[in-house]
Amino acid sequence: MERADWLRAPAGLSRAPGGVTAPAGYEAAGVACGMKPSGLRDIGILVSRRPAVSAMVDTASALPAAPVVRNRGLERGALQAVVVNSSKANAATGAAGLQDAHDMGARAAALLGVPAGRVAVCSTGTIGERLDMAVVGPGIDAAAAALSPGGGDDFAAAIRTTDRASKAGAFLLDLPAGPAMIGAAAKGAGMISPRMATMLAYVTTDAAVAPHDLQALTAAAARAAFNRISVDGQMSPSDTLIVLANGDGPPLGGEARERFGEALAAVCRWLAVQMVKDGEGAEHVVRLLVAGGADDAEAERAARAIGNSPLVKTAVFGRDPNWGRISQAVGQALAGAAGAVHEPRVRLDGVDLGDPGAAAVMARAEYDLEVDLGRGPGAAELWVSDLTHAYVTLNAEYHT
Amino acid sequence: MERADWLRAPAGLSRAPGGVTAPAGYEAAGVACGMKPSGLRDIGILVSRRPAVSAMVDTASALPAAPVVRNRGLERGALQAVVVNSSKANAATGAAGLQDAHDMGARAAALLGVPAGRVAVCSTGTIGERLDMAVVGPGIDAAAAALSPGGGDDFAAAIRTTDRASKAGAFLLDLPAGPAMIGAAAKGAGMISPRMATMLAYVTTDAAVAPHDLQALTAAAARAAFNRISVDGQMSPSDTLIVLANGDGPPLGGEARERFGEALAAVCRWLAVQMVKDGEGAEHVVRLLVAGGADDAEAERAARAIGNSPLVKTAVFGRDPNWGRISQAVGQALAGAAGAVHEPRVRLDGVDLGDPGAAAVMARAEYDLEVDLGRGPGAAELWVSDLTHAYVTLNAEYHT
Repeated sequence: MERADWLRAPAGLSRAPGGVTAPAGYEAAGVACGMKPSGLRDIGILVSRRPAVSAMVDTASALPAAPVVRNRGLERGALQAVVVNSSKANAATGAAGLQDAHDMGARAAALLGVPAGRVAVCSTGTIGERLDMAVVGPGIDAAAAALSPGGGDDFAAAIRTTDRASKAGAFLLDLPAGPAMIGAAAKGAGMISPRMATMLAYVTTDAAVAPHDLQALTAAAARAAFNRISVDGQMSPSDTLIVLANGDGPPLGGEARERFGEALAAVCRWLAVQMVKDGEGAEHVVRLLVAGGADDAEAERAARAIGNSPLVKTAVFGRDPNWGRISQAVGQALAGAAGAVHEPRVRLDGVDLGDPGAAAVMARAEYDLEVDLGRGPGAAELWVSDLTHAYVTLNAEYHT
Repeated sequence: MERADWLRAPAGLSRAPGGVTAPAGYEAAGVACGMKPSGLRDIGILVSRRPAVSAMVDTASALPAAPVVRNRGLERGALQAVVVNSSKANAATGAAGLQDAHDMGARAAALLGVPAGRVAVCSTGTIGERLDMAVVGPGIDAAAAALSPGGGDDFAAAIRTTDRASKAGAFLLDLPAGPAMIGAAAKGAGMISPRMATMLAYVTTDAAVAPHDLQALTAAAARAAFNRISVDGQMSPSDTLIVLANGDGPPLGGEARERFGEALAAVCRWLAVQMVKDGEGAEHVVRLLVAGGADDAEAERAARAIGNSPLVKTAVFGRDPNWGRISQAVGQALAGAAGAVHEPRVRLDGVDLGDPGAAAVMARAEYDLEVDLGRGPGAAELWVSDLTHAYVTLNAEYHT
């Protein structure tokens, strides 16, 4: 696992071959139904062949996409499968779009032989355009027919939009009761991908865990991973994380549950950091470590002001140790704050920003940017990418 | 005056020749002291030759620049002159920088023969670097020696940083007691200019007005103008607006005061819109008119989310009527809002975003973007520029 200090992998967690279908009992597929002009895979299914325990967290947007609205009507602890299309997000599509989401779930459920209430639906892509159900329907049929234990890679490919690479992998967690396998797949080039919408992430495991435990661990992992990244500060109406646990492996009680929670958080961080690395047009990934806030909320406010500042992001792109832009962002974030505000201390991978060595650190593809506000014990962490010409090109040259 | 519907110029206000020294009794100068590598003018003085009434508003940043800190110690209703340098902002420069600001004010005051407490100091440019006082001092001497009633253009040039053009002009306001002349000069390519920091604006008039009236009118004009623009959502530590009124013209009581206030707001809007037009790399200027918010604060939140979204800003650059990005920004801005949130209605200069004519509107250099949230009577207005390759180049290719 790359940059162990970023991922904080707990003891006993190691990489394993395979992807989202690495745990026993899972099958997946990804096929091309013709929605992507490129002809690439655009529809996928992931299923646990036995009833599973599940957890789901989704977007805080006030205008959630139709599949998110539909999924919220399901029992989130009893999901067993998910059907996903890329290319269009089925967001801002009104009542007709909601019906399309229901139809996708019903069609997949019938083919899988499971209740529709156990099948989640996700869509990612352009916001504001209806799905062409005459194309999506047969696509679901083809994906269901192609399901196999080796289909994880195809599934990971089918959920991509502007992603430059698939994001998928498997991990083995050694527990006293035996090893638990964890599979993972995600897509997303930011909180929102440009003309696209969405971060989607799926984690599978054979561990045996109670639904309320899994939901709590999943929510905590999302907070510590996906909620700690920003490509462009834009919240997607489709963001969804689903974790499936089919109980084929070791039971998760007491300390094992805690260790599984740490592993789940590390796997989610691994996916999240990959998303930032694949942030649209990104050339650098920076972990912002803000310390010395009056409280954590203040540190978080400063971290987001720095990480989402187009001035800081272009300085990272240009490898310019421009300390004044960080001072400016802190001044804006702390406007109106009680007590004295000092100029922040800034270090890059441990080197003071004013040192001659700072420029060399900024040439690295990945580095830590530490900002000390000197006001109290508050801290925050945020992974961000830079603002490049490629980002502007990707988002300006696409015409709907 | 361009786009009268944007500026809302009151009856009786017309353009006049000249700039910041157009009202009787003002002198100005702008000279090159060698701070700008280009050799262009970089230090300026503006002075009322008789004691004046004044008003001043400045940045809300928690880390204000040294000149801002110094100016806050002055009686803001009794200013008579201002000395300004461009190239370095004298921000994030600590106690030494504060002393430099005091020294600038004292030196200019001695040359002008007025108390130091009546001379404001402003600096604009790179944050985090000390001024070279061995260069600035003689520059102040040269500027003082060059003062003349015709020096407004040179002053406007001397305060520029990344500005592509000077922003200055004069206006005549017809009042029953006689005409009042208003002069104006500003710099700024946004709330903050890229590697630079600062929006600075100066308005002069010969009207006779009480200090507390002028301060109230100035604060209202700033709210209605400079606080309604955004190039990159970044607040500068140096932002300053100073209005000088030397009483040579008509007295401002009763209705005349009200009419002067409207004129002052229109002049400030005129300056503010010029800043957005000159926003770094800007190719389009959009007036965002958000209606239908539950209240004005909600409409404002939506307007800022839309106007500062890099996805919307690149769509404006690319002339892409991508309605989904506006829906996404509204969804993010209203996350957690009470009551039903609907998809917003979006129009471009009166054309529905979905109409074929929308693309033609987006080819215009300036247009209105109307967003109706359909939730209540709240409204907000914001002028924004687009996010272009030129913005990234300007901000990434500068190395400190």
